[in-house]
Amino acid sequence: MTAMATWLTNTWYVAAWDAEVFSTPLARTICGIPMMVYRKLDGTVVAMRDACPHRLLPLSMGLREGDSIRCKYHGLKLGPDGVAEEMPLTGEAPNRGICVETYAVHERHRMVWVWVGDKAAANPDLIPDLWPCSSEGWTFDGGYYHVECDYLLMIDNLMDLTHETYVHAGSIGQPEILEAPLECRTEGERVYLSRWMPGIDAPPFWRSALGREGLVDRWQICEFLLPSVVMIDVGVAQTGAGATIDSHDQGVRGMVVDCMTPESEGTHHYFWGMARNFRTDDPGFTARFKAQQGGVFAEDKALLEAQQKSIAANPDLKLAGYSIDQGGVRARQMIARAIRARLPDRQEQTA
Amino acid sequence: MTAMATWLTNTWYVAAWDAEVFSTPLARTICGIPMMVYRKLDGTVVAMRDACPHRLLPLSMGLREGDSIRCKYHGLKLGPDGVAEEMPLTGEAPNRGICVETYAVHERHRMVWVWVGDKAAANPDLIPDLWPCSSEGWTFDGGYYHVECDYLLMIDNLMDLTHETYVHAGSIGQPEILEAPLECRTEGERVYLSRWMPGIDAPPFWRSALGREGLVDRWQICEFLLPSVVMIDVGVAQTGAGATIDSHDQGVRGMVVDCMTPESEGTHHYFWGMARNFRTDDPGFTARFKAQQGGVFAEDKALLEAQQKSIAANPDLKLAGYSIDQGGVRARQMIARAIRARLPDRQEQTA
Amino acid sequence: MTAMATWLTNTWYVAAWDAEVFSTPLARTICGIPMMVYRKLDGTVVAMRDACPHRLLPLSMGLREGDSIRCKYHGLKLGPDGVAEEMPLTGEAPNRGICVETYAVHERHRMVWVWVGDKAAANPDLIPDLWPCSSEGWTFDGGYYHVECDYLLMIDNLMDLTHETYVHAGSIGQPEILEAPLECRTEGERVYLSRWMPGIDAPPFWRSALGREGLVDRWQICEFLLPSVVMIDVGVAQTGAGATIDSHDQGVRGMVVDCMTPESEGTHHYFWGMARNFRTDDPGFTARFKAQQGGVFAEDKALLEAQQKSIAANPDLKLAGYSIDQGGVRARQMIARAIRARLPDRQEQTA
Repeated sequence: MTAMATWLTNTWYVAAWDAEVFSTPLARTICGIPMMVYRKLDGTVVAMRDACPHRLLPLSMGLREGDSIRCKYHGLKLGPDGVAEEMPLTGEAPNRGICVETYAVHERHRMVWVWVGDKAAANPDLIPDLWPCSSEGWTFDGGYYHVECDYLLMIDNLMDLTHETYVHAGSIGQPEILEAPLECRTEGERVYLSRWMPGIDAPPFWRSALGREGLVDRWQICEFLLPSVVMIDVGVAQTGAGATIDSHDQGVRGMVVDCMTPESEGTHHYFWGMARNFRTDDPGFTARFKAQQGGVFAEDKALLEAQQKSIAANPDLKLAGYSIDQGGVRARQMIARAIRARLPDRQEQTA
Repeated sequence: MTAMATWLTNTWYVAAWDAEVFSTPLARTICGIPMMVYRKLDGTVVAMRDACPHRLLPLSMGLREGDSIRCKYHGLKLGPDGVAEEMPLTGEAPNRGICVETYAVHERHRMVWVWVGDKAAANPDLIPDLWPCSSEGWTFDGGYYHVECDYLLMIDNLMDLTHETYVHAGSIGQPEILEAPLECRTEGERVYLSRWMPGIDAPPFWRSALGREGLVDRWQICEFLLPSVVMIDVGVAQTGAGATIDSHDQGVRGMVVDCMTPESEGTHHYFWGMARNFRTDDPGFTARFKAQQGGVFAEDKALLEAQQKSIAANPDLKLAGYSIDQGGVRARQMIARAIRARLPDRQEQTA
Repeated sequence: MTAMATWLTNTWYVAAWDAEVFSTPLARTICGIPMMVYRKLDGTVVAMRDACPHRLLPLSMGLREGDSIRCKYHGLKLGPDGVAEEMPLTGEAPNRGICVETYAVHERHRMVWVWVGDKAAANPDLIPDLWPCSSEGWTFDGGYYHVECDYLLMIDNLMDLTHETYVHAGSIGQPEILEAPLECRTEGERVYLSRWMPGIDAPPFWRSALGREGLVDRWQICEFLLPSVVMIDVGVAQTGAGATIDSHDQGVRGMVVDCMTPESEGTHHYFWGMARNFRTDDPGFTARFKAQQGGVFAEDKALLEAQQKSIAANPDLKLAGYSIDQGGVRARQMIARAIRARLPDRQEQTA
């Protein structure tokens, strides 16, 4: 965590998908802090600094013994609370001062969340509410990409669906998206960017999902949540069924879920997926959709990595903000305000 | 362009071979500036900053539409004059203040030249006169290498033919070159380094080019031109035919043409070739000669890249200048003098 | 050699194994200085700066002529004393001021040693006494690794045999090592760390080496010598034969020899091997043992490179020193004391 950090602290970030974490440690640097996570025998997850307090060898190279981890170098054994349980040589009593930093960790919405900041303040109620990922009548799956760009560029990208037409010309882009008016509003710790497309022909994907012909009302609602989540509510309902921009469970509905976790100033972890309330009992559809979504997001990854390099190569130029960028602009403003607001906390923490 | 730049600005540099530039953009960083070049439908060439004014995505990733380029990210469409023609969303009128920097560009001597500096001062008359590349009775071809060294090291290399004996021992080196006296002189914005070898046996290449037996007069004249061009006039004439160091069109004559364009402080673009006034209607000879020349210059590239690394690894040591180095020394002095002389211009430009 | 150097100067370091040095130059950076070494026709070794005094091309790219080296670029010919013998162009007399820095070099104990510092002070008597590498009744062989970590981390590793149990669990580790008490002492420019294991069952390797059944006395004595050598005296003798920690030639004895030469702040050259006083006339055993030892030390190399990266990634954490680390701690203290003690010399040298 540098003084120049562009990310919020004292908040929850996704460290991993639930299915990525096993008994064997997984190493992942979160907000500049090398961490590792593993599951205890009871299935709960432990997160600790990925450096043995003895000689700093990554603990993720170590061996599990029960719920503890034994360093691969000299065999210092550390419990899941981070406290030394057994010193390398017999005859030397473990000193409780010998310990590795552990982090508050919580599993929710199919994700493993880690608290970056003052551990005493870690409250699971503050975990972003990714409700479609764990609600009755919905199913959820997705994947992970390591992306070589500032996480803010990914937020910009997700809070703007205009780019679909150009970046994803070969996949999900369609001209109607450009024609619908955009509405952007801020509510508390959220930014919404909405498009409502009433009475249009459903594109093939949604027609098939809806399972019937005829005109539809279509919506796209990008929602940014602090510290770094974007959910995109997408779907169609039969025209006349009563769907509105605020309430639209009359048809088929999906929720694109994107969690960005800063790794360093110029890289981040990208956890993406799609929750849906249709064909929820069709694992083949889930698998095919995940493959397709992974392909689309790989196009974004390639584009954003090129953008990051170009920003570095053109230090005299600045990003411009047009009207289509208002979603990203507001999300960045919200993050910056939150960083400033919590700054005293951070100073206490690092003092 | 850093304050420490070792290259001249307000001058023309080669951006590309004519045959490298198509309708699809070509990205190339010139003097630290990411640029891209493409041909309009009428065949003329456009050069612009390789960064969309919106979100800085490289425009070279974009799509051509007529003579314009549409950014791959949000579809901002920019004309060949760099001015926005169409905003990403309908309903928003393009603001003429939205534009990308364009650069003066001119095609001459088979090369695409770009003006680095104050665009208003760009005058095609200032393009270095590579006359053998576009004269009647001559033919010209060559290639391109990206070289991981300061362009000044390549100038040093070309303004000294002594190295041929050692670097190119297996190809074009021959001991007679070491025995001939060197003459070095400066004229205006040019440095000449000459060797005149009268009454010698022609080496196999030149004997074959001349097409007859007998003693020849041979010459090698390296000519440096600001900002960064070296032409090497080489050839033989039958002894007694009247050739002199100043006038020698009695036999066969070639002109090795080398244009070095700085990319960064430690890398450059190397455009090399050979013009000749013999066997000009023999494309097979042209192709074979280009392949051979490419092989020889690859030896220089490997050597100079090793030299660059060694200079960095030995910061306590300095390059020495012996008498054989006077060509490169004078060329470097001429560049340094020109940089100092134009410094007020550069300050205005960056102020 | 930076002001922050963590290595001693005015001392001998291993530049190469004797068998690595031929008539063709070998390039190797020692303590930040690019050097190259080669053998003269009489077999003695020359060490010089790997940069031609003319244009700094690595001399290791040059060609041997007799005992001299001719630069590959312009043919400057330098004698083994570093003085120019022949200039690139005839007619120019070599100036004795044109020379490359040479370094005092001495071959001993199967290693080529180079003196880093004031050449006038280079005294072969100061070469660390690796006596088992060149004594009657002993044989010695080993290998070389380039290791991407600070040489001090390798000293830490070698001055502690506790790690064998964990790092080398699959090869030479055994639990008895953990149970034996450690004794650490400092004598002059040496640190000793000993374990004495009387009356134990010999492990398979040593039982086979001893050639008999029955209980043995086993020892492990790590010895650190300035500036950067570790010898580990290992072996077994039949219990009752009279072996002691101070005198133990009654059985079979090996000496693991490790010479670490700093390359840069974060990398070093690692020369490792094993001398032994048993089966000395069995080259097959030598070859097999070297292969096995190379495998074990490759485990250390991988571990230490991970440790180096982790230290860099966790700048807020410090290495801890437990009782098992006292060997490495004392060796580091001895190096730091020696650097401070010789500091006036170094200032004179660099002034």
